[in-house]
Amino acid sequence: MAKEICTRAEDYSQWYNDLVYKAGLADQSAVRGCMVIKPHGYALWENMRDVLDKMFKETGHVNAYFPLFVPKSLFEAEEKNAEGFAKECAIVTHYRLKADPDRPGKLMADPEAKLEEELIVRPTSEAIIWNTYRDWIQSYRDLPILINQWANVVRWEMRTRPFLRTAEFLWQEGHTAHASKAEAIQEALQMHDVYTTFAEEYMAMPVIKGAKSENERFAGADDTFTIEAMMQDGKALQAGTSHYLGQNFAKAFNVKFLNTENKEEFVYATSWGVSTRLIGALVMTHSDDDGLILPPKLAPIQVVIIPIPKPSEAIDNIAQKMLSELKSKGIKVIYDRDEKNRPGFKFAEYELKGVPVRIGIGARDIENGVVEIARRDTKEKVSISVDQAVDHTMQLMEDIQKNLFQRAKELRERNTHIVDTWDEFVKILDEKPGFIYAHWDGTKETEKLIKEKTKATIRCIPLDAPEENGKCILTGNPSTKRVLFAKAY
Amino acid sequence: MAKEICTRAEDYSQWYNDLVYKAGLADQSAVRGCMVIKPHGYALWENMRDVLDKMFKETGHVNAYFPLFVPKSLFEAEEKNAEGFAKECAIVTHYRLKADPDRPGKLMADPEAKLEEELIVRPTSEAIIWNTYRDWIQSYRDLPILINQWANVVRWEMRTRPFLRTAEFLWQEGHTAHASKAEAIQEALQMHDVYTTFAEEYMAMPVIKGAKSENERFAGADDTFTIEAMMQDGKALQAGTSHYLGQNFAKAFNVKFLNTENKEEFVYATSWGVSTRLIGALVMTHSDDDGLILPPKLAPIQVVIIPIPKPSEAIDNIAQKMLSELKSKGIKVIYDRDEKNRPGFKFAEYELKGVPVRIGIGARDIENGVVEIARRDTKEKVSISVDQAVDHTMQLMEDIQKNLFQRAKELRERNTHIVDTWDEFVKILDEKPGFIYAHWDGTKETEKLIKEKTKATIRCIPLDAPEENGKCILTGNPSTKRVLFAKAY
Repeated sequence: MAKEICTRAEDYSQWYNDLVYKAGLADQSAVRGCMVIKPHGYALWENMRDVLDKMFKETGHVNAYFPLFVPKSLFEAEEKNAEGFAKECAIVTHYRLKADPDRPGKLMADPEAKLEEELIVRPTSEAIIWNTYRDWIQSYRDLPILINQWANVVRWEMRTRPFLRTAEFLWQEGHTAHASKAEAIQEALQMHDVYTTFAEEYMAMPVIKGAKSENERFAGADDTFTIEAMMQDGKALQAGTSHYLGQNFAKAFNVKFLNTENKEEFVYATSWGVSTRLIGALVMTHSDDDGLILPPKLAPIQVVIIPIPKPSEAIDNIAQKMLSELKSKGIKVIYDRDEKNRPGFKFAEYELKGVPVRIGIGARDIENGVVEIARRDTKEKVSISVDQAVDHTMQLMEDIQKNLFQRAKELRERNTHIVDTWDEFVKILDEKPGFIYAHWDGTKETEKLIKEKTKATIRCIPLDAPEENGKCILTGNPSTKRVLFAKAY
Repeated sequence: MAKEICTRAEDYSQWYNDLVYKAGLADQSAVRGCMVIKPHGYALWENMRDVLDKMFKETGHVNAYFPLFVPKSLFEAEEKNAEGFAKECAIVTHYRLKADPDRPGKLMADPEAKLEEELIVRPTSEAIIWNTYRDWIQSYRDLPILINQWANVVRWEMRTRPFLRTAEFLWQEGHTAHASKAEAIQEALQMHDVYTTFAEEYMAMPVIKGAKSENERFAGADDTFTIEAMMQDGKALQAGTSHYLGQNFAKAFNVKFLNTENKEEFVYATSWGVSTRLIGALVMTHSDDDGLILPPKLAPIQVVIIPIPKPSEAIDNIAQKMLSELKSKGIKVIYDRDEKNRPGFKFAEYELKGVPVRIGIGARDIENGVVEIARRDTKEKVSISVDQAVDHTMQLMEDIQKNLFQRAKELRERNTHIVDTWDEFVKILDEKPGFIYAHWDGTKETEKLIKEKTKATIRCIPLDAPEENGKCILTGNPSTKRVLFAKAY
């Protein structure tokens, strides 16, 4: 039978790790905190990347590529950003190995090849990019610059988990330059919307849109917009952020332009990114105790056809016809006629891998002109005539995509609380973690205290939060709107 | 007018640099030897990547992603490979910065965050990948593994040139594992063919297929297959390599499998790669003194429509119609109706960027129902009726693609020499560099001597070289086939 995975009820965290490793999304590596993204996981990332890349290009962005390394002096230039990332930087100090005289066959960093200036492996690329933009921007005619980069970055995290928090991860980072504050804020909000659309329409993962509190902002940003999703254990996951960087990087790197009135002005900036972390979010939003559940729009394999109990000429004929019809409709479908494994094994294996639809073609069923179609999300099966199988499958793609979103949204609603007292706040966080809308007095100190006492953080100040007079749950000081609290990944 | 570029006759090397920087392919960066790939250059890379990726997938490969860092002890394991790359490795020694007590506002590598084991920034990924494959392979049933990775790698080269040789570059690296020597060699040859097809059919760049001499082989390979192209200055450029690695990495990382006879055996390996170097090859193969010439199959912009002298309703109407017709045929076309620049400026700019076809719509011409279509490769212009413009453009795409290949092939033939004496060999290399087919006695020593005396290297032992008795040009010792000599990038 299939590989065993822990149940969510037993140990949610172990369930997640089991899924990631046993469904073939990732593997551990010999490098502390770094994972290997296995073919099934990488195919998922490719699908995400392709959709996002199209959305970026449709909103006027182009791709480019900037160096992996950031000289230390550039890294230092924007102080808040440097401070924010300093504690988790991988640092290149040498550029050559030589034979170790004391250990035959072994190598050592050559002391004579020490770099004059250390290089930081990029934890994010604002510094190297804004140092380059200085040469590209003279006047308002050179603006806006709308560039995105697909790249790997390194943040030396102490506690790592596959996809959710790894020392190296893959991501995209947009870096734009604008002639006005209003245009830059508009850009940051636009990309926030793009991320929302991607999360909800492709990942089938509902999100709360909001701004980060000052404490939780990106280091170097004037404003950070975030989308926050609820995982099945009630914890929040920050799924994408878009930053309005003001003129902070322009000032740090002296990037000025002549505006339409021929006056010099510092350039306005944004940056925005999502990463392979989204794979972790996807896994935790939809999957169950039997394995992954992937939304049809992103699944590397959308449909699998399985002969029961084994291939025959009659089964092959029907399978091949369905295969070519589904392929012609753009469906990623495979026919698994491997005779080494029995149907039961295959069922479990494709369930584990999260394939949305399974078509079983049984030797006896085809005498009656029917096949069995099973959907991964609800595990419902129907027996349906061969002629209708393709149409039914196409319909299921849509139904599953919708159902996953609906189901996740209902889970979120069930676990969202409006809370007015400290006792209730603490009780909920202890007993049934979820999202809590509560009043906060707007100070860093209170936010910090709440985090210390409960481990909950302000996930965001929702963009659509209504004005409402209330009292801070901790201090009782006045507040004008509720913010979203949760424990988070 | 457009940006000035040096002519090839004046200074070939300067011409190349001018093209790369002024056509917007790349820019210099603050990091020694690392370039910024600008949007036009990156779009070209995306097109190359997409074609290659499709070819890899059609030959059964899947993508995955392995860590950027290789622990030193793994890096050392395959000794020849380690020795081959040791002198150009970037080495990470620390994982944290801290405030520098002596320099306020500055940071320094935190001495307390020194890694126990140094990490090598991958110059190539055999080590980290074969260390992982050990866990994935138990029996012949787990084979073959056919994985490719798109990634950045770092080789600390002393002399760098944009695209041709940079400290960091982007590439793909295939790493496959097989149950037999024959199958692995077959795989290496298959990918050698894939690269040949890509070079000739997409890049329009003819190549010579061959095997590397022992001296020039990939460090750790039993055999390296290469494709060698001739640049316009007669020098050779190695455009892609595919390696049969034997059991070298399997032995170094102890990767064994149970074969069909239930006996333990070391796994057979291949690796193969092409990089952003191909962009340099493309530039140097086709371009002229006015700028880039890009083959239609890879050009980021295939057709540009320009209003002459400026947009009008009548011109816009025709342009929009052509735009939508060409787009519907899958052509990447833009209509440049920017009124800030005059047509002459635009002509020069798109010539510089290498756009294969330009359609000029003139205010007076359209009264006669014609437009002017210019091809970038020959600079020929025709006046053609509006109705036929789209068909003509489609035909030009094919013609240009073919012509570029033909032209490059003719250049190569004009500069290829069959040489039997040392004097002639030296004379040709001095006076009119090109490809030289000459006899060689098969020894490392002779190869080395020839390189010292002439700077020419054995580019490859052509796969289709006929058996022919002869005498080594340097030593006079017997030889059975001619090999390909050239000076190389």
